[in-house]
Amino acid sequence: MWQDGLRVYDLAQPMRRGMPQSPNHPPFRMLLERRHGDVVRADGGSAANELIVTGGHVGTHVDALAHVSHDGLLYGGADPADLTTNDGFSSLGIDSFDPYVGRCVLLDVARVHGADFLPPGYEVSVADLEAAAEGVEIRAGDAVLIGTGWSRVWHDPGRFTGQTAGVPGPGVEAGRWLAERRPRVVGGETIAFEHIAPERGHAALPVHRIMLVESGINIVETMRLHELLDAGVHEFLLVLNPLPIVGATGAPVRPLAVLPGERA
Amino acid sequence: MWQDGLRVYDLAQPMRRGMPQSPNHPPFRMLLERRHGDVVRADGGSAANELIVTGGHVGTHVDALAHVSHDGLLYGGADPADLTTNDGFSSLGIDSFDPYVGRCVLLDVARVHGADFLPPGYEVSVADLEAAAEGVEIRAGDAVLIGTGWSRVWHDPGRFTGQTAGVPGPGVEAGRWLAERRPRVVGGETIAFEHIAPERGHAALPVHRIMLVESGINIVETMRLHELLDAGVHEFLLVLNPLPIVGATGAPVRPLAVLPGERA
Amino acid sequence: MWQDGLRVYDLAQPMRRGMPQSPNHPPFRMLLERRHGDVVRADGGSAANELIVTGGHVGTHVDALAHVSHDGLLYGGADPADLTTNDGFSSLGIDSFDPYVGRCVLLDVARVHGADFLPPGYEVSVADLEAAAEGVEIRAGDAVLIGTGWSRVWHDPGRFTGQTAGVPGPGVEAGRWLAERRPRVVGGETIAFEHIAPERGHAALPVHRIMLVESGINIVETMRLHELLDAGVHEFLLVLNPLPIVGATGAPVRPLAVLPGERA
Amino acid sequence: MWQDGLRVYDLAQPMRRGMPQSPNHPPFRMLLERRHGDVVRADGGSAANELIVTGGHVGTHVDALAHVSHDGLLYGGADPADLTTNDGFSSLGIDSFDPYVGRCVLLDVARVHGADFLPPGYEVSVADLEAAAEGVEIRAGDAVLIGTGWSRVWHDPGRFTGQTAGVPGPGVEAGRWLAERRPRVVGGETIAFEHIAPERGHAALPVHRIMLVESGINIVETMRLHELLDAGVHEFLLVLNPLPIVGATGAPVRPLAVLPGERA
Repeated sequence: MWQDGLRVYDLAQPMRRGMPQSPNHPPFRMLLERRHGDVVRADGGSAANELIVTGGHVGTHVDALAHVSHDGLLYGGADPADLTTNDGFSSLGIDSFDPYVGRCVLLDVARVHGADFLPPGYEVSVADLEAAAEGVEIRAGDAVLIGTGWSRVWHDPGRFTGQTAGVPGPGVEAGRWLAERRPRVVGGETIAFEHIAPERGHAALPVHRIMLVESGINIVETMRLHELLDAGVHEFLLVLNPLPIVGATGAPVRPLAVLPGERA
Repeated sequence: MWQDGLRVYDLAQPMRRGMPQSPNHPPFRMLLERRHGDVVRADGGSAANELIVTGGHVGTHVDALAHVSHDGLLYGGADPADLTTNDGFSSLGIDSFDPYVGRCVLLDVARVHGADFLPPGYEVSVADLEAAAEGVEIRAGDAVLIGTGWSRVWHDPGRFTGQTAGVPGPGVEAGRWLAERRPRVVGGETIAFEHIAPERGHAALPVHRIMLVESGINIVETMRLHELLDAGVHEFLLVLNPLPIVGATGAPVRPLAVLPGERA
Repeated sequence: MWQDGLRVYDLAQPMRRGMPQSPNHPPFRMLLERRHGDVVRADGGSAANELIVTGGHVGTHVDALAHVSHDGLLYGGADPADLTTNDGFSSLGIDSFDPYVGRCVLLDVARVHGADFLPPGYEVSVADLEAAAEGVEIRAGDAVLIGTGWSRVWHDPGRFTGQTAGVPGPGVEAGRWLAERRPRVVGGETIAFEHIAPERGHAALPVHRIMLVESGINIVETMRLHELLDAGVHEFLLVLNPLPIVGATGAPVRPLAVLPGERA
Repeated sequence: MWQDGLRVYDLAQPMRRGMPQSPNHPPFRMLLERRHGDVVRADGGSAANELIVTGGHVGTHVDALAHVSHDGLLYGGADPADLTTNDGFSSLGIDSFDPYVGRCVLLDVARVHGADFLPPGYEVSVADLEAAAEGVEIRAGDAVLIGTGWSRVWHDPGRFTGQTAGVPGPGVEAGRWLAERRPRVVGGETIAFEHIAPERGHAALPVHRIMLVESGINIVETMRLHELLDAGVHEFLLVLNPLPIVGATGAPVRPLAVLPGERA
């Protein structure tokens, strides 16, 4: 498979203190516990290491089906109380998401609008998705990503999190259109795979309900897609292998796009 | 690339409280912060989430070059003090490891000895590696893994961590033999990619020095390889994409082995 | 009050990585995040600081009434589900424990037996308490502590936590005898204020039930009392002011014994 | 000592997620790990517990001498590198602060100005301190607190942290005046015991230098003093017993003011 070279795109945002993240989740913190020289072995060796505090929905990550319930029920009608333990969810957790290595379609809605990135608060419509999907087939079991260009906004936490101006993303109709195509996973660049209107915050997350609760489709968020968008890539092999944290409602991931041939 | 099907092997151990880990690193902890029903939105939606405390060398993980120094110097002769900040290492951290997607050779030393797994404290020799490598070429830039069968011992933390009985792995000679083949990364199933004699603990880690300090070769540890060993696979596409934690000396990873064709 | 001098005894064990603690609670970890020199201001100033991970029942600490339920009910018949939020308990948490500054009686049961410390697994009886209380009145609203001498064992985590050999403390009868005296708070030196028989672990904690659930009496554990025992002090002013962590089931505390006059 | 009753004032702010704190320190987080019913023992008992993440300078806390260095040196001319380990400071840490139980003088500068609380960015002057100290003697070894009324502002994190409008407190001259009186500890209600001018942030902290580096005087910050200010109390017994976290540069504390007689 590797004989003729592979082009690999790193689709994860770097994880560091102060990166944009939702206020609903524990703030990311990485700090060195031991530095070189703190403990030196007799042979002259020394090791440094760190402690990491994070949430499961921090940085680029995959939402497990256990993440969201609606009217008191999870996907498949499960009662969350039956699955909840002090070690997390006994099923529907991120450890029940098998690593995905397969076809991925990227729908570049920013390009449909001739924009580097969509305006905050823009609702991605069915027409947007149909225009972006022209000439590329979406098959059941694929991964389907929406390009909003918002990974270009990552450096600006206030704007990226959209607490006041909102975040672009699919509304209810676009969400249903996607779910009807039976993808294995959907996702994009924004902090939530939703249309978030200005001044609304995360008051309602209907696309999460459609995907996680009604359809059993996982969501990957806060991806770094602008290199793929710049390269005009619409179809590729996606590797999506979130950390196997048993019982968690989500986990960080470093997704990769893999294409044949050498990278320019 | 995906047209004819892919066989994917998950090479990560599951991450949960109480899993085997080195006492040198912060203990893993995942706990739910919000459960379903704690906060219910007006539309009936509710989200659960978690907080995670971990070290960068916990579970299946990749060691960054910044992890180990010898006689006060890191790889390339860098002085650790020049690279150390309160946000970690300004270079040689795990964020400077480009995701590896490429050829991997698995040297099954357990099979050489006709064992399901090597005894604790066994030193893997050059002869072992040569016997295991018979018929498979090791090329510069490859990933090279040693099969000890110890991912079968994972369920027994006391034995797996080898605090008293030791851990099987390459000694100095085997380490040098590997480094001379100029791999991009080496690794295996054990808690440290080292021969640890009984009652020694982590008193000296010469293979870490050879790889990280002298050769600039990263190490991946605590892999789950027994499914590959059982399948007799010696060559495959390895995906090794540790979390991009800026400045960290290591990071968790969920490595995958990818092979053509459907899995049986 | 301070005119004629005060003798102050520090009744807290020092908090550090590796100190004895129950495996039921998150392990204590303190690590420096910034060291001097990491960030130096223009005026030459530099500050170091740390991150702390702990449980609320780690080191010397006070149990809140919310800590234990029996047959599904908390103190006063409250249903825990009604009080539980993602920010902890809305009542009966440690923040509802008003700091105690008042009379304390120390019942030295080790001295009754002529021992520096009681044997592991020893059950403190009503007769022990009556012998230790001879000549000292226990009044309603007092704090009452039992001296077992086990703060002398603190340096030995395996023995102190008593996972195999047990821990000395009051059994059911001694617990009831204490509760009938209507103290405000009870406690002692051991990891749990209970008689823990050899090989039992924390399988049953009847004194917690008697105090926290049935009587509304808080418990302070893992105290450092041996200096008071050595000094033969049986009555003093106790300051017991756990951190006001809103909604927590317990919190660390540094209790003080205060007596008139200069310390020798 | 307790015969005639004691009035106790709680001088700590409650600790909860979202409370005002400096962005330099790890954000406070308390979350339940086990809830009642997660694990029920055979006898019907169940215990809830939590995990706490915090900094040492979060909420009401005491600064250790190790917290600040100037021109590369700590108090007494110590080189921080000589005292720094991966377990914190081997001396000058908060564990070297003996619990203080003694006389405390509260200088109510807000009352000098006839204000409930001083304006943001106000510099407390020597004249202010002299006016507030009229009629009360400051003795060597006392604790001395400055009343700014800012514990009334605690409910408003944006204002309390003063990132834009500043924080009232002693400037260099007032700091020197205080240090010359040789107190054991100084402190107050604000997030930093400093005058912080508008738009300056924590760019320079000269009073920390005067106290911690030059004079060996500890600082207690973010106290809750407004009940004492309302009661017109200027002299009392202060209990200041920070958690004995070995090697830390600071630790949370729940200080108490104790006065003779019953509280109204």
